[in-house]
Amino acid sequence: MRNLLITIRYDGSAFHGWQVQNNAVTVQEVFQKAVAEILGSCPDIKGCSRTDSGVHANMFCLSMKTEHTIPCERFVSALNSHLPDTVAVLDVREVPLDFHARYNALGKRYIYKIHNSAVKDPFLHGRAHRYRWKIDDKLMDKNAQDFVGAHDFTSFCTLDKREKGDFTRTVSECKVRREGDMIYFSVTADGFLYNMVRIMVGTLLYINEHPELSGTIPDMFEAMNRDSAGPTAPACGLYLDKVFYDLQ
Amino acid sequence: MRNLLITIRYDGSAFHGWQVQNNAVTVQEVFQKAVAEILGSCPDIKGCSRTDSGVHANMFCLSMKTEHTIPCERFVSALNSHLPDTVAVLDVREVPLDFHARYNALGKRYIYKIHNSAVKDPFLHGRAHRYRWKIDDKLMDKNAQDFVGAHDFTSFCTLDKREKGDFTRTVSECKVRREGDMIYFSVTADGFLYNMVRIMVGTLLYINEHPELSGTIPDMFEAMNRDSAGPTAPACGLYLDKVFYDLQ
Repeated sequence: MRNLLITIRYDGSAFHGWQVQNNAVTVQEVFQKAVAEILGSCPDIKGCSRTDSGVHANMFCLSMKTEHTIPCERFVSALNSHLPDTVAVLDVREVPLDFHARYNALGKRYIYKIHNSAVKDPFLHGRAHRYRWKIDDKLMDKNAQDFVGAHDFTSFCTLDKREKGDFTRTVSECKVRREGDMIYFSVTADGFLYNMVRIMVGTLLYINEHPELSGTIPDMFEAMNRDSAGPTAPACGLYLDKVFYDLQ
Repeated sequence: MRNLLITIRYDGSAFHGWQVQNNAVTVQEVFQKAVAEILGSCPDIKGCSRTDSGVHANMFCLSMKTEHTIPCERFVSALNSHLPDTVAVLDVREVPLDFHARYNALGKRYIYKIHNSAVKDPFLHGRAHRYRWKIDDKLMDKNAQDFVGAHDFTSFCTLDKREKGDFTRTVSECKVRREGDMIYFSVTADGFLYNMVRIMVGTLLYINEHPELSGTIPDMFEAMNRDSAGPTAPACGLYLDKVFYDLQ
């Protein structure tokens, strides 16, 4: 028996998220189909997170146990030739048998892309959130610093029956930078709650429109109430960018 | 009567080129439909060039005469709200009545994007030509210089009944540069023949695989025979990048 850690990248606009659903094409479904075509059947697959419909992944990790002895490098090419063009396998490596793509993740980094322009760009459709009002990226970056540290993110998540217990997450880095008419928000944390990044971004954009609210993110944390934060930014701008593991 | 110069951008992967065709969706068709929805009918439209199926445009220009007095800026927004997300109008301006988007073009710049990687990238699917073998971008740039100047491009075009007479075109700039695993080929000329850029790129890639052919582009020009040059690179990497006009 081998346990494989598989790193993939996908264009989320083609999928209804990662997790298998009825009546909707998901990344997990096309991935399982590719594995089954190569190995004859597909074992149980553990994804590093659930990504929503339309959310992208520069790097998404999954683990699966198999009796097959197909060499890792050959499995990469085989998977890539069986997957649609919207999903790519970047790496396959063997990991200890007790490794789990989700539970062993020490943290993750997400990027949120905003196209700050009055005019749409056909090449960014579905790949960035278009926001037409002027963005003060320096002020946005300053407010983003209020997310850094250990906080109870109750105000910054969509309540989800699946999430139980502790809503505390530790954000180690949160940055906003501009490149031309693109704004890149990036956030690294030990874990993320449902819709957490999209609500963080929606809140920063809301503050951008109401600069008098600058500096109030600590109050929103304290309120522990979803209504105290801003709206949920659209899925299309969100990219799971990196998953951190302690692997040699 | 006003003559309007309209600048658009489009993701060519959604279209069978610019020009109206039977049984295939083209950019001209969706553009004419949008104009007709706004103005009631669509006048004759002059495109700056014919782009092939799958070819993109960062900037494509067209001219049309109309009796309508809709202000240019309002026409931009109206068109954008009637066009699909794969086409955007960047600018509308009034030009002299005798202006023609194709005949008045002093030159054009094309960019060809190559994703030089063993692994596919879902975000570049249909937007760059993936080429898995190592590219010597310095050597490619050196060979690209042989395209600069006035040459008969008979060897570097697909013979087309529509193109008559002189096959001489003057290339003012031709460059190859690398950014990570992306290779950008750019070429500016007073005009382009059918498939000319794709054959130039296909030839440079062929020379990349056969470095002993480095320096032989002058011989290919002299042969005046399509067979002397390399293959036609795929459409998906090609972008019409700029159209040059002498306008105040």
